[in-house]
Amino acid sequence: METVRVALGARSYPIHIGPGAIDSAELYRPHLSRGKVAIVTNPVVGPRYLGRVKAALMRAGAVETFDVLAEDGEQAKSWASLEKVIDALLGARMGRDGMIVALGGGVIGDLAGFAAAVYQRGIGYLQVPTTLLAQVDSSVGGKTAVNHARGKNMVGAFHQPRAVIADTGTLASLPPRELRAGLAEVIKHGFALDAELAAWLEANIARLLAQDAGALAHVVRRSCELKAQVVAADELEAGHRALLNFGHTFGHAIEAGAGYGKWLHGEAVAAGMVIAANLSVRAGLLQAGDAARLRGVVERAGLPAVPPAWPADRYLELMAADKKVAGGRMRYVVLEAVGRAVLRNDLREVDVRAAIDAATKASPTAAASL
Amino acid sequence: METVRVALGARSYPIHIGPGAIDSAELYRPHLSRGKVAIVTNPVVGPRYLGRVKAALMRAGAVETFDVLAEDGEQAKSWASLEKVIDALLGARMGRDGMIVALGGGVIGDLAGFAAAVYQRGIGYLQVPTTLLAQVDSSVGGKTAVNHARGKNMVGAFHQPRAVIADTGTLASLPPRELRAGLAEVIKHGFALDAELAAWLEANIARLLAQDAGALAHVVRRSCELKAQVVAADELEAGHRALLNFGHTFGHAIEAGAGYGKWLHGEAVAAGMVIAANLSVRAGLLQAGDAARLRGVVERAGLPAVPPAWPADRYLELMAADKKVAGGRMRYVVLEAVGRAVLRNDLREVDVRAAIDAATKASPTAAASL
Repeated sequence: METVRVALGARSYPIHIGPGAIDSAELYRPHLSRGKVAIVTNPVVGPRYLGRVKAALMRAGAVETFDVLAEDGEQAKSWASLEKVIDALLGARMGRDGMIVALGGGVIGDLAGFAAAVYQRGIGYLQVPTTLLAQVDSSVGGKTAVNHARGKNMVGAFHQPRAVIADTGTLASLPPRELRAGLAEVIKHGFALDAELAAWLEANIARLLAQDAGALAHVVRRSCELKAQVVAADELEAGHRALLNFGHTFGHAIEAGAGYGKWLHGEAVAAGMVIAANLSVRAGLLQAGDAARLRGVVERAGLPAVPPAWPADRYLELMAADKKVAGGRMRYVVLEAVGRAVLRNDLREVDVRAAIDAATKASPTAAASL
Repeated sequence: METVRVALGARSYPIHIGPGAIDSAELYRPHLSRGKVAIVTNPVVGPRYLGRVKAALMRAGAVETFDVLAEDGEQAKSWASLEKVIDALLGARMGRDGMIVALGGGVIGDLAGFAAAVYQRGIGYLQVPTTLLAQVDSSVGGKTAVNHARGKNMVGAFHQPRAVIADTGTLASLPPRELRAGLAEVIKHGFALDAELAAWLEANIARLLAQDAGALAHVVRRSCELKAQVVAADELEAGHRALLNFGHTFGHAIEAGAGYGKWLHGEAVAAGMVIAANLSVRAGLLQAGDAARLRGVVERAGLPAVPPAWPADRYLELMAADKKVAGGRMRYVVLEAVGRAVLRNDLREVDVRAAIDAATKASPTAAASL
């Protein structure tokens, strides 16, 4: 078991990483209060892990646990789902001393975390991520939200968990499509923040796709270290933390434009990173070869490198409805080098349009067949 | 113009108090960002003050303002209203650099403040309270929430405003019932925290009911000072701040049991304080004469001192659904003396029942006719 700490003063918390972590009563015990524990999960994850998590909570001394089932998939990140979770907590008469355990992927974490943020003005919660995407990214950092017809994550809160319990053993049974979607965020961490991780990914992508336990544990730990550093430096995304949105402005447009749930979040981020790398090259910031490296690893990870063939206008309209507008100017995360992302709000729309057009009209390269 | 500061480190903010405050561009200017400004109000307050607030915001340099109308009354503190406000903000394409101005009483402040807490994971807001209740209590301290069928304020957030602009001139036109409801929270501040204020109220209640500007300004300022101290010491109500809930456990039961909106919040708190003072006496903490002083000032303020004649069981059931349960034990705010409230979770249910029965069966005393 390895532990990475997120240093946030009174809101600091540990991320425990390793196989069998969800069975360890010791990891839950320090965070239990005297109240009830609600385990929020979905009909896919629940049958697999609910019994184990409950058993560990009981051994840790939890007084009373109960389950709340949300829908499977992105549609569970809705206002209606949030209302149902809150109704269930109130129906169980959970008090302010209650706690939520978010058991599942990124959707469950965002939904359950937001419920914890607003239930009786805020209660504690634990993240127990069971997908690669949630373990390497969404369970860390306290961003919680639900979607709105007008855009992703439009309603939410910054609310840090009391701990993250990332059982890498759960990744062995992850469906291949979900595994790949999680790899997109690992690729993001490498190309935006850590050239060494980017190079490691290029060399080890096959081991990851084969669900090699050691390789998966490595990228979970390294991703958590990177994310913990960024979050500790800029909890509320006043600046630096926005670098983690590399690929997300375009990615959110893809998810919204296609209809939530059609593209997995990680798939949309992968295609979005390809556009963002194109933009970096057109803006004169990045060498074309580095953009090709990103595209290559996206394709070799089995992720879509070609975004939907919509006109650039459609992308710009979808992006304008997204949150990354400051003072009326679009803000982009672009690369200056592999492992070095920067935030720019002075890019020319003509370059943005050209970057979109080039990406949507591209055909898969040789890398895709490797 | 007087200014009271709420000292909360990076989240510190001023409370500006005085006649004509809402017209002063200087008070808004330091808090404006580059984004749009949404003024959330209702059809009663809007026609009276919206033009003046907008004019001041324009003079302060606001780029673009727009209005969002919620319903009048407690029913606006609903999940559905919150959704409508958020839809309106998204419809206006307000970004993360936008700001909300909460123009109205406690309901508008709680609703608009909660919308600010969760819109795009949190944006800034100003409280511009136009009722006595909002000026002396609810606009200060960052508690925001909406109600649920199972209880008041069940969903919400701690989210501090950037400033409170309390124009005491707006109190001159306040309907008498609203004025009295606000006085209940002033009485609470006196009897829970400040014996001098309690004695001042006993001597000056007639001036307040006559809407004497000097007397009103005095209680607004003193209440804000008391509340600012308590909030600075315990922002998230981990302990001491709970003393401000004096009368509220019983009061919330009255509001919920009667159906929201039948009793004004302040009216229910007034009757709730009478029960809580009874309980303090029965628990051997308070002298009977001090409980009589509280009841006397409640009656002379024209507030209900006799709670609904429901059986004690009904009260206990409504209270169990409320939030003030810790580790399964009911927690009560009781008085040890006038101006000295304490938090107790070891009181006997038999005393609670007797305190309720005595209050509900009482008839108005001579003080009511003074």
